[in-house]
Order: sequence, then structure tokens, then C-alpha cells
Amino acid sequence: MPKFTLQELCEKLGEPFEGDGSIQIMGVAEIDSAKEGEISFVANPKYVAKIPICRASALIVHKDLDTDFRPVIRSSNPYLTFTQALYLFHKDQRKLSGGIHPSCHVDPSVQLGEDITIMPHVIVERGAVIGDRSILYPGVFVGEGAVIGNDVTLYPNVSIYAGCRVGDQSILHAGCRIGPINIQPAAEKPPVVLNDDVELGANVVISGQSESPTVIGQGVKIDNLVQIGAGTQVGPHCIIVAQVAIGDHVTLGERVTIAGQVVVSPGVTIGEKAQVGAKSVVMDDIPPCAVFWGVPAQAFSKEKRLKANIARLPKMFDKIQHIEDHLSELES
Amino acid sequence: MPKFTLQELCEKLGEPFEGDGSIQIMGVAEIDSAKEGEISFVANPKYVAKIPICRASALIVHKDLDTDFRPVIRSSNPYLTFTQALYLFHKDQRKLSGGIHPSCHVDPSVQLGEDITIMPHVIVERGAVIGDRSILYPGVFVGEGAVIGNDVTLYPNVSIYAGCRVGDQSILHAGCRIGPINIQPAAEKPPVVLNDDVELGANVVISGQSESPTVIGQGVKIDNLVQIGAGTQVGPHCIIVAQVAIGDHVTLGERVTIAGQVVVSPGVTIGEKAQVGAKSVVMDDIPPCAVFWGVPAQAFSKEKRLKANIARLPKMFDKIQHIEDHLSELES
Amino acid sequence: MPKFTLQELCEKLGEPFEGDGSIQIMGVAEIDSAKEGEISFVANPKYVAKIPICRASALIVHKDLDTDFRPVIRSSNPYLTFTQALYLFHKDQRKLSGGIHPSCHVDPSVQLGEDITIMPHVIVERGAVIGDRSILYPGVFVGEGAVIGNDVTLYPNVSIYAGCRVGDQSILHAGCRIGPINIQPAAEKPPVVLNDDVELGANVVISGQSESPTVIGQGVKIDNLVQIGAGTQVGPHCIIVAQVAIGDHVTLGERVTIAGQVVVSPGVTIGEKAQVGAKSVVMDDIPPCAVFWGVPAQAFSKEKRLKANIARLPKMFDKIQHIEDHLSELES
Repeated sequence: MPKFTLQELCEKLGEPFEGDGSIQIMGVAEIDSAKEGEISFVANPKYVAKIPICRASALIVHKDLDTDFRPVIRSSNPYLTFTQALYLFHKDQRKLSGGIHPSCHVDPSVQLGEDITIMPHVIVERGAVIGDRSILYPGVFVGEGAVIGNDVTLYPNVSIYAGCRVGDQSILHAGCRIGPINIQPAAEKPPVVLNDDVELGANVVISGQSESPTVIGQGVKIDNLVQIGAGTQVGPHCIIVAQVAIGDHVTLGERVTIAGQVVVSPGVTIGEKAQVGAKSVVMDDIPPCAVFWGVPAQAFSKEKRLKANIARLPKMFDKIQHIEDHLSELES
Repeated sequence: MPKFTLQELCEKLGEPFEGDGSIQIMGVAEIDSAKEGEISFVANPKYVAKIPICRASALIVHKDLDTDFRPVIRSSNPYLTFTQALYLFHKDQRKLSGGIHPSCHVDPSVQLGEDITIMPHVIVERGAVIGDRSILYPGVFVGEGAVIGNDVTLYPNVSIYAGCRVGDQSILHAGCRIGPINIQPAAEKPPVVLNDDVELGANVVISGQSESPTVIGQGVKIDNLVQIGAGTQVGPHCIIVAQVAIGDHVTLGERVTIAGQVVVSPGVTIGEKAQVGAKSVVMDDIPPCAVFWGVPAQAFSKEKRLKANIARLPKMFDKIQHIEDHLSELES
Repeated sequence: MPKFTLQELCEKLGEPFEGDGSIQIMGVAEIDSAKEGEISFVANPKYVAKIPICRASALIVHKDLDTDFRPVIRSSNPYLTFTQALYLFHKDQRKLSGGIHPSCHVDPSVQLGEDITIMPHVIVERGAVIGDRSILYPGVFVGEGAVIGNDVTLYPNVSIYAGCRVGDQSILHAGCRIGPINIQPAAEKPPVVLNDDVELGANVVISGQSESPTVIGQGVKIDNLVQIGAGTQVGPHCIIVAQVAIGDHVTLGERVTIAGQVVVSPGVTIGEKAQVGAKSVVMDDIPPCAVFWGVPAQAFSKEKRLKANIARLPKMFDKIQHIEDHLSELES
């Protein structure tokens, strides 16, 4: 497992810390089981009481949490920052068994890297490229001219349509479909490009396009069953939670966070570091660093005020009744 | 097909009945086609008029429905209770052709039960266990050390990651992914445990975890395209409808019902027999037997009152206008 | 690529046009890159400014857009109409390599059409039918007695359960699951019928049923990760956007449009040409040609007014305060 100083870790996570940045972090664990040398997190308020008895060497906490614990990484979403840390510590734990199983069908024109592992019943079509040390699990399909980078893991039944590209160190879980498209890609244009260090959950679908490719930036983490539309650009280090549906030709800046089951309408732009709350529908552009929520999505403070206003209604109805009564008293 | 007395059936369904519990139920059918010896249901109010001409021997109806028909099973969700009954009557209709197709790759260390059926292009990795009479359809992947119980059906392209466990009589439809995880499981800890009699729809994803396993209780029924987070505990006999997204470390008690496209936030606890309405976002714990709805989810009666309050607004605006007019009249 | 006159194209799209219907359309392109002979579209208001400099021979615009450009196709949803046009122009671009790969398992009883392509590791079970010129990608599963029409494309890992039918010229993207069901189909009743010219996105699930089949009408276009319930009827030329969940026994009339992540409750009927906005929950029937939105879904104008009413609340609260102050002044 890799080692990082706290400062190195924070640079990778894109979050600030308080306390000694030089300490060594050697692993991640939950708050109850964390030991010296490990980092843990507090996302749910009910775990704040456990901070004084926690043995972790560092904690990821909410940016506004009042705590004396040091060192801390401060994040607007401690849970997601923790899952990113989890990924950083574990992504290199790959077994490399090597070799191509005889039941595979790899076209003779395919360019194969060193120390690759291709398990049974994998198909790699004409003109594709498989980088060094990459692992293809059973039933993976790599279409004509597709390019798979170095140190990539494709879990069972991942399908890479013709011409798509997967960057180095990327991990695609079982059943991901990259580049569904009915139009043959033009010579030089890949329908989908995943940059390096991308992680996709199971059964994710990223649609392809022949005019302008769908691009997923470096270090992006996408959860299970997400759909990304054709021609969409997802900036580096974005986090997209389970079952989000992003339309065609959307643009997400760097480090955007999209919570579960959000819909982003076609053509929308979301600025860097913006956050969108669970189940929102994003119908218009969102500025950088904004926190949005609702249907349609609006500034979080506005949406919260709107919900508070709705909650005040019973009181208001009483007041109006009271005023009416008062008024008729006055008259009589 | 199995036979049950009405009373036996109600015990399995966990719902009360009125009338003669000793009658034999031999099958399920829709209200128009049900015959003697079969059970049917009325979920939609527009079918209530068909009750007097229905030939079924028993009906599943809403717990508050005013009807003289007997016997009836009373349920807070007749449609879901019906689908559970459907499952009870049909789950044993399995063909057992037997044998392992020569195109499969089953590691010599795998422990194989009796009368199993392993269809073409299945992969079973080192140290895995396949129980008696289980059926693995084409393209199934069973990872290292995974344990598949007796009488299990795994439909095409199901992927069971290393170390996960699937209980007896469970049915996993095509494209289910059990245990996507990047961390090798510790020796004794399975990333995901499905208990007996679990049924999963197609393309369901259940995430795994190395510290505390994701556990799906006995008799749980999960619909198509659902995602369950890592470390989550789903109690026995829960029903989870299509495209629900449950976060990590969630706890669902026994017989919880979650309607379509609900989001449950990480770390939340939902008490036994609670029900959550379609498209809710559950952000806080829900007590046992409660019925919740909304974004964020709140008691159903509260959410309904809230919606009623919003519907009253135009009238209220008129009233306020009226009061203002009245007031200026009074002054002048 | 095919050619159409504008009038022919509009008949296929089911939308009216203004201007010269006799011009030849030979392709589709985005507004910036469209050339003479091509059709483009304007969905987002920010692209309206590009209309005067657009070189396309025709444009798809919103039905209420004020523009002098001619000819135009007028649509209530220009983007979806464009994607339909895209499909019409590109669906015939199929390569036909011919033949059955020796690694496939095709039962000797299967009825095979002419010029078919069956790629490695495909399974076709007893009594199935594969029509002329159809293409089955690696890892496809076609169950017992299933019928695949002519000119069909089944992308990698599509699973067709026993007895289901797929119409001519249909395209099913990777990981689609047709007919998950636990009950063996009755002799003459297919669990799912897809009519001709259906297109399904990746990882779509269409549930099956033994009593009354699930039917998808001619020319229906379904986006990625959608779920369709058992016994549901989807009328011809409907468009269903990503991650929609349609319950069991739902009826959709002709040319219905359902936007992203909508839930349609079991048993509901939606009339022809109706439109449902993103993330709605449809709990009751919707009349033909209506535009509905919200949770629960209601007429779009009503839902908009409701949202406008909520937005007016802060002002109303101020007014009430003001009235109260005024009233106490009056009294004193």
C-alpha cells in the first residue's frame, strides 16, 4: 500500500488541512477501528462524540466543524473526500497474473503491452491497443481501434465501443458501457475519451458521439449506474454519485460534485468546484463554487429558504384567519 | 407449483387476513382472469368495481378498503404484496439440465455441489463454492473464494466479485453486479453477503466493502437497476422498487418498503416495516412502521399537508389582497 | 447514408414544417458545423443568435420560436426531434461481415436467416429464430424460443430471455436485458415483444410477464438505464429519456415523450403525444397531448403556477406583517 505525508495527500484531494502536514499516512479506516498512521473521517454529526477517543493520526471533517483535533483535513463533503482517500490508498493493489487466456479472441493486428492479463472469453477487435500491465476480466469487449492505457483494470463484461479511449490507471467496474453510438466514428475522432485515473462504478453508461467526443477528465470518480450523455465534458477530479443522469453536451468544470440521482439537462455548464444536492434537476448554468439544490436547482440557501417558507405556511394561514377575525371585530 | 393454505401464505407475506384461513391457494392471477383456487389483488381504485364479479378464492386489498369480499389479505401496499405472492408460487419452477459445459473455465479447486448446471462461457475462479442444483447461465463470472448456495439461479452475465456470498434459493437476474470493490477482501470477511431467498432484478449493483460486509437479509426482493452502497444492512423481507439508490452504511430494518427512485443518504437508519414513497430523499433516520415521503422525506401526513398548504396558496393570496382592500376602505 | 425530402422526413418525425418541403436533406449536423443539404437544430435559447449565420438547409426549432429562417421543422422538443432525425440518417450504417464464429453455441434447432453475423461467445438456445442480416456482438444471449427479426443489431452482452421477440431493424445497445421473469412463458405468449425499428440504450431493462406481454411499439426510442415494468404497453414512436422507471401494466399512447428520471406508477395510462417533464412522478392518468410535470405530476401550467406561488411567499409574509402592523396602528 502507498504512503503519503498529510500534505501530499491534501494536494491529491484538493482540500486544505490544519496541523502538522509532515506526518505519514499509511492507510484509511473508519473512526471506530482506525489506528495510528491511518486517516479516518466524521461526516455524520452523530459521530462527532467519538472524536476524542479516536486513535487515527488524522481526520477528515466538515469545513465548519468546531473541533480541537489536529491534524484535520477540512472538506465541504467529508464522506466523499474519504472515499477519494480510500481510492488513493487502494488503487495499486492489483494482482498481475500475466498472459492471454486461449479462449480469448484478440485480433492479430492488436498492439499488446507488456505483462498484461487477459482472462477467458475476452474479445479485442482489429487495430485496438492494450497498454502495459492492464487487466481485462472475463467477457470484456474492446471494439475496433479502441485504446486501453497502462495499468488499467476492466472488470467482467465491460464493453468499450469502437474507437473509444481509456486512460492509464483507470478502473472500470463490471458492466460499464463506453461509447454506445450508432454512427461509425470518423478516422481520427474517438467517440469517448476517459483520461488517466478515472474510476467508474458498475453498469455505468457513457454515450459516444462522432462529432465531438465525450471527455471524462483526469481523476474523475463516477459511482454505479450513472449515465453521461454524448459530447459531454467532465472536468478533472469531479465526483458523480450513484444514478446521476447527465444529458448531452453538458460541461462540468474541475472538481464539481454531483450528489445521487441528479439530472443535468443537455447543454448546461456547471462551474468548477460547484456542488449539486441529491435529486436536483439542473436546468440552467451554475457558477463556479456555488452550492445548488432543488427542482429546478437553485442556490442552496435560496432552496433552503424556500423550504422554510413552505414550512411556515400553517402559521401564516392562522395569522390570516386571525387578521380576518380581527378586522370583522373592528368593523362591528 | 406449490400450494399454501391462506394462513400459511399470510405468514410468509407478513400480512393479516380476514375470513377462512384454511382454504387452499394454488396460484396467483390478475383480477380478470383469476379462477377458483387462485389469489388476486386490487391495488388501483378503478378495479374495485370488479370485486363482485371476480372468481378468485381470495383477494389482496388495501388495509382500509371497505369490501364484503372474504377471505381478504389486508396490506398497506396490495400490489407489492401480490408480487411477493407471485414470487412464492413461482420460484420453484426451475429446469435442471445438469452438467458443466466444456467451454466454461472452472478452476480445479472449486467445490461443486450435485446436479448443478453451468452453461457456456461461465468462469468460476479459485476456491469458489457452487451449491447443489444451482444454475449458472452463460457468461456468469464467480470470483475467487465466492460462495454460491444451493438452488441458486444466476442469469446471464451476473458478476460475483471475489469473496462474496449468495444464499440458498436466491435468484439474480441478468447483469447483476455483486461486490464491486477495489480492495482485496480480508481472509475471513466477505465484501457482500446475500442471505437465502433473495431476488434481484436485472442490472442491480450491490457494492462491497472490506471492513464490514454489505448484508442483504433473507427474502429481500430488489427490483431492476437498484444500487446498494457498501457496508449497508438490508433487513429480512424488505422490498426495494426499481432504480432506488441506497448509500453506504445504511441500515434497513425488517420488512421495509422503498418505492421507485428513492435516494437514501449514507449512514441513515430506517426502522422495521417503515414505508418510503416514490422519489423521496431520506436524509435522516425513519422510525419503525412510519410512512415517509418527500424531499427531504418526512411523515406522509406532514408531506400531504405541506402539499395541501401549497395548493391553498392562490386562495390565500386572494384573501390577503381582499384584507388589504378592506383595510384601506376602513381607513378612508 | 439515406436521403429524404424535408416532407418525407417530417412524416417520419411526426412534426409539421414551414417552407419548401421538396428540398433534399442528406444528413444531420450541429449548428456550427452544418453544411448545405444538412439539417440542424436550435434547442437552447443561447443558440438562437447563431441562426442567421447557420448554413444548414433546414432547422428544427421550438414550435413557438419567432424566426424567419425557412424551411423549419417545428417541434415542442427540438432536441429530441433532432436525435430522432440523427437516428433516421444513421441506422443503416451497419457493417455485415457475415458468418458464425466457431466459439458460439447455437443450438442445431435454431432457424438462421441469410447473411447473419454472430460474433464470438454468443449463445442461441433451442428453437430460437435469427432473421436475415442481423448482427449479434460478443457475449449476446438469446434464450429458448426467442425470435430476433431481420437487420437487428444486438450489441455486447445483450440478454434476450426465453420466448421474447425483437422486431426488424431494432438496435439494442450493450447490456440490455429483455424479459427478466421467473415464470416459464406459456407456449404461445412471449413475455416481451419489441416491434420494428425500436432502439434501446445501454443497460436498459424491460421486464417480462407470462399473462400479458410487455409490448414496445414501432419506432420507440429508449435511452440508457431505463426500466420498463411487466405487462406495460408503450405506443409507437414514444421517446423515453435516460433512467426513467415505468411500473407494471402502464399504457403509453403513440408519440409520448417522457423526460429523464420520471417515475410512472403501475397501472397508469398516458394519452398519445403527452409530454412528461424531468423527474416527475406520474400517479394518475394523463390525457392525450397534455404536458405534465411535478411530484405528483400535474398540468405544466399548474405546476409552474405552483412554483411561482411558492416564489411569491417572502413578499406575502412581508405583506401579512405589514397588515398586522397596520391593524394594530388602527386600533391604537
